[in-house]
Amino acid sequence: MELRGAEVICQMLKDEGVKYVFGVPGNTEIPLLDALAQTPEITYFSAIHESVSMAMADGYARASGRVGVVLVHTTPGTSYIIGNLYNAYNAGTPIVVLAGQQDSRLQWSDPFLDSDLLPMVSQFTKDRWWVGHGQDIAKALGRAFKEATTPPTGPVFVAIPRDLQAQTVVADAPPAQGRQVPMAIRADRESLARAAQLLAAAEQPAILAGHQVPDADAIAELAELAETLGAPVYTTAQVPKLIFPTNHPLYYSRVPPIGFSLPGLDGPADVLLAVGSRLFKQLFSIEGPLIPPTTKLIQIDLDPRGLARDCPVEVALVASPKTALAELTSEVGRLMSPGQREASRRRFEKLKSARAQARAAREADFERDWDAVPLRPSQAIKEIARALPPGSVVVDEAVMLTTYIEYIMEFSEPGSYFSSNACLGWGLPASLGVALATSRRPIVALVGDGSALFGLQA
Amino acid sequence: MELRGAEVICQMLKDEGVKYVFGVPGNTEIPLLDALAQTPEITYFSAIHESVSMAMADGYARASGRVGVVLVHTTPGTSYIIGNLYNAYNAGTPIVVLAGQQDSRLQWSDPFLDSDLLPMVSQFTKDRWWVGHGQDIAKALGRAFKEATTPPTGPVFVAIPRDLQAQTVVADAPPAQGRQVPMAIRADRESLARAAQLLAAAEQPAILAGHQVPDADAIAELAELAETLGAPVYTTAQVPKLIFPTNHPLYYSRVPPIGFSLPGLDGPADVLLAVGSRLFKQLFSIEGPLIPPTTKLIQIDLDPRGLARDCPVEVALVASPKTALAELTSEVGRLMSPGQREASRRRFEKLKSARAQARAAREADFERDWDAVPLRPSQAIKEIARALPPGSVVVDEAVMLTTYIEYIMEFSEPGSYFSSNACLGWGLPASLGVALATSRRPIVALVGDGSALFGLQA
Amino acid sequence: MELRGAEVICQMLKDEGVKYVFGVPGNTEIPLLDALAQTPEITYFSAIHESVSMAMADGYARASGRVGVVLVHTTPGTSYIIGNLYNAYNAGTPIVVLAGQQDSRLQWSDPFLDSDLLPMVSQFTKDRWWVGHGQDIAKALGRAFKEATTPPTGPVFVAIPRDLQAQTVVADAPPAQGRQVPMAIRADRESLARAAQLLAAAEQPAILAGHQVPDADAIAELAELAETLGAPVYTTAQVPKLIFPTNHPLYYSRVPPIGFSLPGLDGPADVLLAVGSRLFKQLFSIEGPLIPPTTKLIQIDLDPRGLARDCPVEVALVASPKTALAELTSEVGRLMSPGQREASRRRFEKLKSARAQARAAREADFERDWDAVPLRPSQAIKEIARALPPGSVVVDEAVMLTTYIEYIMEFSEPGSYFSSNACLGWGLPASLGVALATSRRPIVALVGDGSALFGLQA
Amino acid sequence: MELRGAEVICQMLKDEGVKYVFGVPGNTEIPLLDALAQTPEITYFSAIHESVSMAMADGYARASGRVGVVLVHTTPGTSYIIGNLYNAYNAGTPIVVLAGQQDSRLQWSDPFLDSDLLPMVSQFTKDRWWVGHGQDIAKALGRAFKEATTPPTGPVFVAIPRDLQAQTVVADAPPAQGRQVPMAIRADRESLARAAQLLAAAEQPAILAGHQVPDADAIAELAELAETLGAPVYTTAQVPKLIFPTNHPLYYSRVPPIGFSLPGLDGPADVLLAVGSRLFKQLFSIEGPLIPPTTKLIQIDLDPRGLARDCPVEVALVASPKTALAELTSEVGRLMSPGQREASRRRFEKLKSARAQARAAREADFERDWDAVPLRPSQAIKEIARALPPGSVVVDEAVMLTTYIEYIMEFSEPGSYFSSNACLGWGLPASLGVALATSRRPIVALVGDGSALFGLQA
Ligand SMILES: Cc1ncc(C[n+]2csc(CCOP(=O)(O)OP(=O)(O)O)c2C)c(N)n1
Ligand SMILES: Cc1ncc(C[n+]2csc(CCOP(=O)(O)OP(=O)(O)O)c2C)c(N)n1
Ligand SMILES: Cc1ncc(C[n+]2csc(CCOP(=O)(O)OP(=O)(O)O)c2C)c(N)n1
Ligand SMILES: Cc1ncc(C[n+]2csc(CCOP(=O)(O)OP(=O)(O)O)c2C)c(N)n1
Repeated sequence: MELRGAEVICQMLKDEGVKYVFGVPGNTEIPLLDALAQTPEITYFSAIHESVSMAMADGYARASGRVGVVLVHTTPGTSYIIGNLYNAYNAGTPIVVLAGQQDSRLQWSDPFLDSDLLPMVSQFTKDRWWVGHGQDIAKALGRAFKEATTPPTGPVFVAIPRDLQAQTVVADAPPAQGRQVPMAIRADRESLARAAQLLAAAEQPAILAGHQVPDADAIAELAELAETLGAPVYTTAQVPKLIFPTNHPLYYSRVPPIGFSLPGLDGPADVLLAVGSRLFKQLFSIEGPLIPPTTKLIQIDLDPRGLARDCPVEVALVASPKTALAELTSEVGRLMSPGQREASRRRFEKLKSARAQARAAREADFERDWDAVPLRPSQAIKEIARALPPGSVVVDEAVMLTTYIEYIMEFSEPGSYFSSNACLGWGLPASLGVALATSRRPIVALVGDGSALFGLQA
Repeated sequence: MELRGAEVICQMLKDEGVKYVFGVPGNTEIPLLDALAQTPEITYFSAIHESVSMAMADGYARASGRVGVVLVHTTPGTSYIIGNLYNAYNAGTPIVVLAGQQDSRLQWSDPFLDSDLLPMVSQFTKDRWWVGHGQDIAKALGRAFKEATTPPTGPVFVAIPRDLQAQTVVADAPPAQGRQVPMAIRADRESLARAAQLLAAAEQPAILAGHQVPDADAIAELAELAETLGAPVYTTAQVPKLIFPTNHPLYYSRVPPIGFSLPGLDGPADVLLAVGSRLFKQLFSIEGPLIPPTTKLIQIDLDPRGLARDCPVEVALVASPKTALAELTSEVGRLMSPGQREASRRRFEKLKSARAQARAAREADFERDWDAVPLRPSQAIKEIARALPPGSVVVDEAVMLTTYIEYIMEFSEPGSYFSSNACLGWGLPASLGVALATSRRPIVALVGDGSALFGLQA
Repeated sequence: MELRGAEVICQMLKDEGVKYVFGVPGNTEIPLLDALAQTPEITYFSAIHESVSMAMADGYARASGRVGVVLVHTTPGTSYIIGNLYNAYNAGTPIVVLAGQQDSRLQWSDPFLDSDLLPMVSQFTKDRWWVGHGQDIAKALGRAFKEATTPPTGPVFVAIPRDLQAQTVVADAPPAQGRQVPMAIRADRESLARAAQLLAAAEQPAILAGHQVPDADAIAELAELAETLGAPVYTTAQVPKLIFPTNHPLYYSRVPPIGFSLPGLDGPADVLLAVGSRLFKQLFSIEGPLIPPTTKLIQIDLDPRGLARDCPVEVALVASPKTALAELTSEVGRLMSPGQREASRRRFEKLKSARAQARAAREADFERDWDAVPLRPSQAIKEIARALPPGSVVVDEAVMLTTYIEYIMEFSEPGSYFSSNACLGWGLPASLGVALATSRRPIVALVGDGSALFGLQA
Repeated sequence: MELRGAEVICQMLKDEGVKYVFGVPGNTEIPLLDALAQTPEITYFSAIHESVSMAMADGYARASGRVGVVLVHTTPGTSYIIGNLYNAYNAGTPIVVLAGQQDSRLQWSDPFLDSDLLPMVSQFTKDRWWVGHGQDIAKALGRAFKEATTPPTGPVFVAIPRDLQAQTVVADAPPAQGRQVPMAIRADRESLARAAQLLAAAEQPAILAGHQVPDADAIAELAELAETLGAPVYTTAQVPKLIFPTNHPLYYSRVPPIGFSLPGLDGPADVLLAVGSRLFKQLFSIEGPLIPPTTKLIQIDLDPRGLARDCPVEVALVASPKTALAELTSEVGRLMSPGQREASRRRFEKLKSARAQARAAREADFERDWDAVPLRPSQAIKEIARALPPGSVVVDEAVMLTTYIEYIMEFSEPGSYFSSNACLGWGLPASLGVALATSRRPIVALVGDGSALFGLQA
């Protein structure tokens, strides 16, 4: 079949089930914009700043689990997405960014608004390409969707010159299937056994969880293992989407960005299980090792590069968090002696009541401040919490107040909380994307006044 | 003398006569922000978006002729400046961007907000560096100011890790002098003679001028040569700052972005003198050569890379526009026969009256449309023109309306007009920077509604 | 403990069990060369060309299964290794390249022989770094050894400024352990089941194997699956080390570099299992799909990026070839009906005898040419084959004659054959490295006369 | 006219007057090799290592003043030229490297031997490009020859996919002319005057010369200025081609790579004129400023980037060494008082006799060692010097013995001496290229035994 390059793109977007494209138009995408206008299955959302398009796509993709598609205008469009692309990259959001590039026949004429787009985005994308032949557009998009959606997911970038969008190509309309790489992979068997032994015998185990846990739909598995072990659960300092129900009796807190002390434990953990996350995103340099030398570290990650990266590990498991946690729970259950089981139960109870006490004490502090003038953050967040209808989804870019949101609000369902306190300007537009994905629930964006200003265009 | 790295920076900024620093704060610049707070000679302008800081610095630098200094926060700050950095780079604005980078001791711990900043900005800076030793901060800034201010001027970028800002170094407080590279360079003598011969003998000469002309303070020299030759003057399609008085009787228009036809001439020019500019910034691909084969091209540029780049030249002159134009005028004057002088005078008169006629015809068109509903662009611009107090400075990001501004308003003084219709979001913040530099004159920003939205934070 | 940076390096090399360092000395590595001289456990082999050092390390690492360590001299040393680094990268050889970089305090003085070494090697290394603090040398080397040795293995590159080699640091002498990431990972269970079903039901199955098979020590598992299925085994066009015993009755040939026709089959395979390899390394562009549309493709790879990359797949398995093949064999065995088992046995017999016939026919051809003048390649290789003592190891860079080696010689044991016909100049020096690793067996390098000239320095 | 891409290349090479192409063949250049075979005006020299081709082209270009053209085979070929490309880049040799790249239609199929060639060479080329359309080959080569030959000259790199070499294009066969950018540019007039004043008044002036002096054919002008000033002449530590007659009575020595002490002066110079060279190529880090604080530095360079780079300058002149030196001499002559002229004459005499004494002392040392066993370097070089026929050209990669060549041999004519002691492996092949350019004179390569081994393939 003969199609124009732009039509091949629309065809593939439809095949992938794409319903929205987020962008700001420019003349290097005209053939594609025209073709999109002929594609009723896809709605094109034009924003008034590319930064907004990028965050909308990110919010939409985080909340829907689908690919967010962004369409931008050569150098200007690409330059303005980078901040929120950085946020999306850290959250592992599956995103395909398409950029209209200048006519490739102008390579030697210093064309208007042209540059090499790839170096700008290379650090913040899983992969990135420019297309050299109209005939290759289908291959390029196929590779892009495959990489974006294969866990660990993330944004990819494809630059397509305007002349190739307009060119007629012979298209064998490659179907969306044939590119799935299922990643419910299972860990090395021996390493799994060693990890289970360490955990079963641990006297003060602890768990640190990252965003691969909800990405792999492994929250229930994590809860079960934590309960089996009587281990407190912490999450990474940054929580791109809810990692663990914050009202679970074993949930403690996010790890502090400085150092690595875990509240709720009597001393350092003897075994720390880190699952689905880069271990650290340090903010300040500290002396000494990041993890106490007496703590044995077990790490689970889909990507071997995330393991044994910045400190020595006892056991490194390359695996889907879902399969690894399930296998660990069943193996630990099998290995635990009655005494160990009893100790675990006691740890559980102790952690639960210590947690309740800590919460009560904090609550008392907040009460004491209730009438303080000026308003304390705790008051503000408490009033907001009270006002929220049930089932609300919170999009948090509240920066300093994130701690209070964490203390005061409770999030139990996956998809009820999203956040990025990194490159500011994400909160407002991301909440629009979240809203698009979850049409029936109230969406509340809690954004610092400063941060809000960065996203004014949303 | 012992100083902290941040103090060395402040010292050097003072020595360079820097009065303003434009930025958005973040924790990787804390030592430098502290030191700036102790430096009463320098005012720090905090914006609510880095894109604004960048354009303010650009506007300030274009209008003042001084270096614009920007201070940004590692990855987020750097990512947000790129769009307006691109604009500044194309305008050749002398700018020093300082970026606070994460503590260099965290290199192996995936620190928060960290990335390699240089690839993001490399295409849009004259040069760029990271500093590896506190001791080298002075050398880095010295090199930065030298490159930014040496014509062809442009932005440079220096990334300085937070720990080096805080580190104590032995500073021999390098003075600002010792880094000037005067660029009133004079062309190859033989080539100059050949150019003068071609111009003196030309029957239909034309001149195309770019922003190096005002940058080199060579507008008067250009006018004198044009008058000597009886040649019409065109400018590049993009006019970052006023290139030639638009009310000069020989000024015709900007060159159209598509193709290269010159209004006002009977046919193609036999000799075209292009001075101080990349020849083309093509927007659309066209068939055939960009310049008619019968046209002999003479090019003047401070940088040999700008010459004989995308089409063959008859004579290429590496020289300051100021010296080259002055030498050409004097040589052409010497070479012209009485007959040639007479022909030149006739061309001058003819061009002058053709220009007046064209303007009158356009004026008549506008009058005819005067009561059209909806409002025509010409009406809007005419009303605005009428309302402007004398001595106003126009900052133009009016996109489609730029043509009408060009037709209707007149700009005679250097520094009375600035523009960028490239990466949108420049106009509003740039006008703030222009205002800072020209405190007593009214500053008017004419910005398209769409473009204004990109610069909302200004 | 206080140590110099160079001593920390030696300590870590010892801990990693490194016995040899291959390099050419230069003044940027002096502190490290001095420290090596004080380390009797490690032998430094100085070559007369860095290209030789690189290929020796590659040969050594391929044959020994240990890490090859290379030490080179800033820009000259790095530039000369790239050709053979490319070969090593394609072979997935675990190699750590250390480069002495100029004194970091000279950054602003254009030092002699200095450049940014990383862009030169970035495409041909799994990862690459420069070290910024003496204190970080241990972390850098730890990361380097971890990445080099974690399957899929490959070369990494670490640039260490001379001053940091000489600097005294507080070293907690990080032990070699704590960095292992065991990669006997097991595939997604559902995908495995689907793959087994397809294979059990296949009527014309075929297997394509790449170098991850011997790397994962999975040759026996591959043979068992092939036998269970009655499927012919092909290997990739490039065979960096023996992938499958060439005398196995089901082994057919390498896949041709152009197109993808499989000798020995009556028509296209209905199911093709590709294991442990990039599918294609195309040499010429062909029309049409690379794999016939009727062929269902199953792919196994340790790295998801290798899967569903250039053509659609039916099932993609991220797994160690060893575990995946074993699990597939057992599942296929369980699923096969008696009829299928019988059909498989018939395929086996048919393939075996067809293979024997083809070999006999080829043999007859060779016999016919036996007295041809000039000498035919087949004669040459046959004579060499005859002369080889049993247990010989062949290192092949014979280019055009590789086909004859493949036809005439037989290799049954892992480690008995190594090859690279890519960037020439590898064969002679690689054979020295192989010899170092396998001290008791005769090593025979079969190298084209042209190729040999590229490796003269060996 | 319709031509194949490869024919366009040959056409342009002929137009540029190219007589030799140096390379090693591979299948990505087949169309171009075929076309070259049809071009009797051009001889293709096939070497047995790309490193040899590169150095041959370098030697040829240095000695002939013409462009050296190299043709290499995608990744392998490009990787092997880098070492000698680095040498050529530092020498500013005008070279065009053409690389055959894989068929561009294979972009998505991981083709054999393919990679992104540009990052490998980017630091060692003036510019570099890949060609995207057959139609653009002429523009690409035009730009390449222009950049390579415009002073400061240097190597450029053009990657051309095989399919574009074979593609039929409409060629308007762009003539070689139209790309010359004459660089006899003259300095800023005021700066020149200030420089002349400083020099005229100097009591202890000194001159440091680099390779831009012979490149600009400015040796006579330099000698005249030195004589006018009574100033000793030094050259940079690396001498890619003869910079100044070593038997001139004012010639002293190369500057030492460590620090910056000038033999022959009573103390530090009060005015140092550096012409046509990066000031430093430091080998070791030293404490304190590189140039004594009492020395006023005047710098002349064709490229503003070379000026005021690593230490403060009093006067920076962007100019051709030839024009700047001539203008300086005439201005200094005009400015000097009779007293100053007399002082200059006295300095001249003193330097001349001090130089003669130093030479005699050294000679005496050598004589004393004459019968030393083992052979002293001085003996070896003296014997060689004696054996050389008059008019010999020396190609020096003797490393440690270069000092003795400098002491013992005398070179008076431009083009009688070439050297590179940087990335080894240059001497032997470079001498072949030199021989090709200077067919009637004896060429003698003095190469260290170690260095010779790196160039065995020559
Ligand atoms: C684009 C960007 N610029 C600068 C920063 C540095 N930064 C971190 S927090 C912050 C202030 C945020 O203000 P607000 O949203 O009001 O939060 P609060 O002050 O209440 O914590 C800034 C500027 C950043 N993270 N991102
Ligand atoms: C950052 C950026 N995004 C997109 C574009 C493409 N673009 C060029 S003009 C334009 C519309 C500008 O609207 P407005 O300012 O109202 O100008 P008008 O429509 O009146 O010409 C857009 C989106 C751009 N130049 N820069
Ligand atoms: C470094 C390098 N340069 C060039 C080539 C292109 N090339 C491939 S095969 C070959 C000739 C090899 O000659 P020889 O080893 O004698 O093999 P034969 O001709 O017998 O096949 C060349 C030059 C290459 N692969 N690598
Ligand atoms: C490609 C390359 N590798 C290593 C070096 C470091 N290096 C500098 S001099 C030298 C030895 C040169 O030996 P030889 O030519 O015999 O010179 P001599 O020892 O006589 O000075 C080496 C290895 C280099 N400059 N280039």
